[in-house]
Amino acid sequence: MNETEKFPTEALNSKSSSRRKFFSASAGIAGAAFAGRVHGQTLGDVPPRGLGDPLSGSSKRSAHVQLSRIPEAGPGRRNVDPSAAINSKTPLDKLVGTITPADLHYERSHSGIPNIDPAKHQLLIHGMTRNARVLTMDDIRAMPSVSRILFIECTGNGWENWKKADANLTVQNTHGLISTNEWTGVSLASLLDLAGVDRKSTWMLAEGSDGAGVARSIPLTDEVINEAFIAYGQNGEPLRPAHGFPLRVIVPGLEGNLHIKWLRRLKFGDQPFMTRWETARYTQVLPDGKARQFQLRQEVNSVITTPSGTMQIAPGYQRVTGLAWSGNGRITRVEVSTDGAKSWKDARLNMPVLPKAQARFETEWVWDGKPTKIVSRATDEKGQVQPDRESFIARMGTNALFHYNAQQTWSIDAGGRVSNALA
Amino acid sequence: MNETEKFPTEALNSKSSSRRKFFSASAGIAGAAFAGRVHGQTLGDVPPRGLGDPLSGSSKRSAHVQLSRIPEAGPGRRNVDPSAAINSKTPLDKLVGTITPADLHYERSHSGIPNIDPAKHQLLIHGMTRNARVLTMDDIRAMPSVSRILFIECTGNGWENWKKADANLTVQNTHGLISTNEWTGVSLASLLDLAGVDRKSTWMLAEGSDGAGVARSIPLTDEVINEAFIAYGQNGEPLRPAHGFPLRVIVPGLEGNLHIKWLRRLKFGDQPFMTRWETARYTQVLPDGKARQFQLRQEVNSVITTPSGTMQIAPGYQRVTGLAWSGNGRITRVEVSTDGAKSWKDARLNMPVLPKAQARFETEWVWDGKPTKIVSRATDEKGQVQPDRESFIARMGTNALFHYNAQQTWSIDAGGRVSNALA
Repeated sequence: MNETEKFPTEALNSKSSSRRKFFSASAGIAGAAFAGRVHGQTLGDVPPRGLGDPLSGSSKRSAHVQLSRIPEAGPGRRNVDPSAAINSKTPLDKLVGTITPADLHYERSHSGIPNIDPAKHQLLIHGMTRNARVLTMDDIRAMPSVSRILFIECTGNGWENWKKADANLTVQNTHGLISTNEWTGVSLASLLDLAGVDRKSTWMLAEGSDGAGVARSIPLTDEVINEAFIAYGQNGEPLRPAHGFPLRVIVPGLEGNLHIKWLRRLKFGDQPFMTRWETARYTQVLPDGKARQFQLRQEVNSVITTPSGTMQIAPGYQRVTGLAWSGNGRITRVEVSTDGAKSWKDARLNMPVLPKAQARFETEWVWDGKPTKIVSRATDEKGQVQPDRESFIARMGTNALFHYNAQQTWSIDAGGRVSNALA
Repeated sequence: MNETEKFPTEALNSKSSSRRKFFSASAGIAGAAFAGRVHGQTLGDVPPRGLGDPLSGSSKRSAHVQLSRIPEAGPGRRNVDPSAAINSKTPLDKLVGTITPADLHYERSHSGIPNIDPAKHQLLIHGMTRNARVLTMDDIRAMPSVSRILFIECTGNGWENWKKADANLTVQNTHGLISTNEWTGVSLASLLDLAGVDRKSTWMLAEGSDGAGVARSIPLTDEVINEAFIAYGQNGEPLRPAHGFPLRVIVPGLEGNLHIKWLRRLKFGDQPFMTRWETARYTQVLPDGKARQFQLRQEVNSVITTPSGTMQIAPGYQRVTGLAWSGNGRITRVEVSTDGAKSWKDARLNMPVLPKAQARFETEWVWDGKPTKIVSRATDEKGQVQPDRESFIARMGTNALFHYNAQQTWSIDAGGRVSNALA
């Protein structure tokens, strides 16, 4: 008999450290604070048992579960005609864990969602190359694949709070332009090799097939060469049309706009291509009125998702949870303040924390019923600490629209209503 | 200025090792074998550009993508009326990466899919406890959460190949009763603590709300106490009804049948509860006719998903990819043979490899057009090696139905047709 086939039930009577630890009344994760919230010992009715619905080819959501994004036409322009929408935000307040369902991954487009037939789609690779190439989807899917769990964050995520705080916003409104999926595709390195890209090439133009023809220059840094890939899959399935079907660029940790969707062309050169998407758009207007080009990194960031804007809490035990992320790599620490950033307490991080992916943090708090403010502050493996809003604005001013990563404050009034606040 | 805001484009002209490596014509991952497959330099037409479809609250799949499971009524009973189906298999041949979309996670039920109102659902915790409890879903969602990416595998996965090999089976037919999702819920340890479970308790009964009333005894080993949890989320969203909405047991690495869906009751005792699901069902019939109870571990396993059963290949370069997993922990090695298990070559593993989750492996092969057989063989961190079919059957006989983990062979005929084979 294979030794692993005997399940070690004989160990059940051991005095191991695990058993001592978890069968101890004082060792609970939640502790006494949580215990006060649970129901008593009144047993409910046994639910009716009967034959359920038949199995199927595709598992539907429960009719009791309502999940959808919010299409918006830009900062402060909500509840618009969907045809006017330029983005659609992920309901971070209703999701758990770190993976975003593919149908709820945030959408962002400058000209709607192209309907592309993958059998006809081609990728042109040219410019400073020895062997310019045109690849079909079959060619690309026949190449070795890589998969990685990563966040993509719209360059403008957080723009709602640049200038003022609308007290009626949810975390979906303030931070819903970020999502985390497992992305699968072919490494940029293998395409560089296949096309014989000149080693003097330092920039790559990536161009989409969308009506707007969004195109960006991506610097061929070591990081990009080592980590970038061209994705055809998300969360195990082909990309969905809104997310770039059949092909998009993945540049881990850098701004969402570089992750060109509906990719049709990669051109190599030795300088940036200066498209309108990096001159007229997606530049950062600094306090002195000058515009900075190629600010590409999504900096360390975090937000409490429960409790968050428009939620209602009652005095007593609170589960406080949220998400943290950094384009620099792994999140190493998240602190939570429940007294308006006067004092801080380390939150737990759900393990493993993956680099350049969202990480779930949690902590507990007993609310005494008095008005207060709750805030989270993340630190990444490069030692970058998420700035408070005051120092962030002192440095960046309020002319900019992009890369907002100041600490998010939720204020709680005496009635337990949670509202978006600047600090 | 924050130092991280300057993207290091000045490094573009460096002579770093990454740039030397990836801009070298000989360093390609796929190498010369792949390059022979790609299209030439004939450029395609520029696709028409226009305004696309509007953004929305939920991203749909492309009309060009067809993905669904296969409902079955048991081994060899395919294409049945869905109301007769007892399982529905994941299309492993059509998926990429390692995460399974929630709607394509395999389904398994003994009495269909209950329709449960989460507002009325309760979890009873009783037996050898100081404080028997009835928890509502609100109670449970208010507790600290844990999330983990894990496979769940039906105890019967592989049963199609126990006795003979139907040459018309796809990998969805042979291995489609396994899927990998991120699961989120509350740790078993915190529930033990909350209910004051007696430290002399060594077994836990978990009972579902389904018509069949599936209930299993789960041994409270250190591993179970440390790792088990009660899930309410999968891939970021609430469980789908077919997967246990609103609550299911997660016992990482152990057989799927223990992962009780539609969970309504946990009872603690000091011996197994001997339900019909562990006496009449889910016991392993050994070669001598005796039945082994509580064979719970899903052993080390792997399968090549491309190329696989019913696919058609052409001579030349082949991408060979598949999935490997083990209930013992991490996969440490996958070897692939393209000559019927005479010689083996290490495949690449996509990193990071997560414990008790499916891992993606890949390698390349140039097929010379002669009939052959391809096989994969996985090894896990406990040193367990996936057995060949001959030694597996010599040990287990052919009376059993469960825990089939023999190496999977795909035979390839002179015409390039790929078929299921025993070895």
